[in-house]
Amino acid sequence: MNGWRIQLLAALLALACAGPQTTTQKLEQVLAHAKPDDWRAPDPQQTLYVDVNGGRVVIELAPAFAPQHVAAIRALAQRQFYDGQHVVRVQENYVVQWGGGDLQAPALADEYTRTTAGLAFAPLPDGDVYAPEVGLVDGLPVARDPAAHAAWLAHCWSMVGVGRDMPPDNGNGAELYVVSGHAPRHLDRNLAVVGRVLSGMPLLTALPRGTEALGFYAADVAKPPIRVQLAADVPLAERVKLEVLRTDTATWQAYVAARRTRREPFFVTPTGRIELCNALPPVRTSPPNP
Amino acid sequence: MNGWRIQLLAALLALACAGPQTTTQKLEQVLAHAKPDDWRAPDPQQTLYVDVNGGRVVIELAPAFAPQHVAAIRALAQRQFYDGQHVVRVQENYVVQWGGGDLQAPALADEYTRTTAGLAFAPLPDGDVYAPEVGLVDGLPVARDPAAHAAWLAHCWSMVGVGRDMPPDNGNGAELYVVSGHAPRHLDRNLAVVGRVLSGMPLLTALPRGTEALGFYAADVAKPPIRVQLAADVPLAERVKLEVLRTDTATWQAYVAARRTRREPFFVTPTGRIELCNALPPVRTSPPNP
Repeated sequence: MNGWRIQLLAALLALACAGPQTTTQKLEQVLAHAKPDDWRAPDPQQTLYVDVNGGRVVIELAPAFAPQHVAAIRALAQRQFYDGQHVVRVQENYVVQWGGGDLQAPALADEYTRTTAGLAFAPLPDGDVYAPEVGLVDGLPVARDPAAHAAWLAHCWSMVGVGRDMPPDNGNGAELYVVSGHAPRHLDRNLAVVGRVLSGMPLLTALPRGTEALGFYAADVAKPPIRVQLAADVPLAERVKLEVLRTDTATWQAYVAARRTRREPFFVTPTGRIELCNALPPVRTSPPNP
Repeated sequence: MNGWRIQLLAALLALACAGPQTTTQKLEQVLAHAKPDDWRAPDPQQTLYVDVNGGRVVIELAPAFAPQHVAAIRALAQRQFYDGQHVVRVQENYVVQWGGGDLQAPALADEYTRTTAGLAFAPLPDGDVYAPEVGLVDGLPVARDPAAHAAWLAHCWSMVGVGRDMPPDNGNGAELYVVSGHAPRHLDRNLAVVGRVLSGMPLLTALPRGTEALGFYAADVAKPPIRVQLAADVPLAERVKLEVLRTDTATWQAYVAARRTRREPFFVTPTGRIELCNALPPVRTSPPNP
């Protein structure tokens, strides 16, 4: 796969040479042609910074799907509840989990699904193993059951959920996890999903794995400390400047088409298909590097 | 998800209490009831040891799917071609890649697909986004197109492939990669897949990410050195003792049923579905811990 470097170069050359249009564009062409307002900046009031392992993880929260959990997490961040707590669990191909400090608060409503009404759903065309329909809502991967009028966030790599104990406990936000490997979609509708990591995943996924059952760190291991803040509470100059490709745009549709049917010369057999967790919207620094 | 500890305990208690049978068993019950010959030991002639980062990665090769590539890799291991080479690429949620040293050998036949004839295919029941049919063959995740009489190994987490340059190059085995995140199934039928990592994934996936394009390490970074041996060339006492659950057994069917419909009390909404890359056969040390 050295050739992927060459592929990138070839794609840039093809772009520069303006050859005849094919039915779908290459990925690089789609992004190069995107207009400034095809991108959106996350709301700093709904963005969490998790400082860990010498860097900053940026999480965009999803109040449309788990309003009570998101409100609780925002409040906990603002009262510095998580600060000085630790990453407690790193399980290969599954989750990284932090927090868990003693929180005297009742568990929240389950918020595992919500109604489909009022969601700007950008469907994906190739089906799904776990749900009748899948697509994107405001940049988040969503599964949908039209018969039940229900929608829920999917456990894709980089999605954030709220840990809980046994039912009927639904979690109170004291402990959060991030999906770190292949999508454990069997967790969908069993836990409250509250957002997506937009940047900094390797700060979590490259941590040493826990050696106890379920990837929990052993008692004698130095656990990575965390600090959690709401982006809005951080001075403007110190915020992470990110933009997410909007999923309610023609550019998003072109991006999906380009990923479904790869035109780059590396691909001898373009699949013509795309699965939900391989269709997460791209994130860029803002303004982009020239 | 502290509750998963409780869940494990509850499952063990349920097992000990021998309550009435439900239509599907719990995962722990299935594995506890497995017979010794439901497990198989990988052939040491078709098993690769990759020593890296202070530990040993064990790869079961797949000569039934990529015979020429596997033969080339075995020969390269036996002549110590890879020894002293390095991990060169660690890309988040994609691949970890090693080798690439100068190999004066022509590229091999593509071996991206093979005929379906003669494969002991254990189908999965819930479909797939990328292929008409999916299932397991000798413990490996396989996609199948009956109309084309074609089968191929799927790019699931932990699967191993052969790096290549641009077509018509198909790679010669000098450079290998392991899928480290969500399944990049768009690579299926575009690269030769040659095996599956049975143990040691964190030795690769917890390595620092490369900072160059596509996750390649920068020139000035100390790259993790590797040593690669065929298991058969290692003294018996020093071999890693592993067993893989056989996929041509009733126990495998029970395992899939238990993963499709989780009976553990943690799950409030069992999905009743399972996707190929969430159905990789379990691996245990042999003999298992008591």
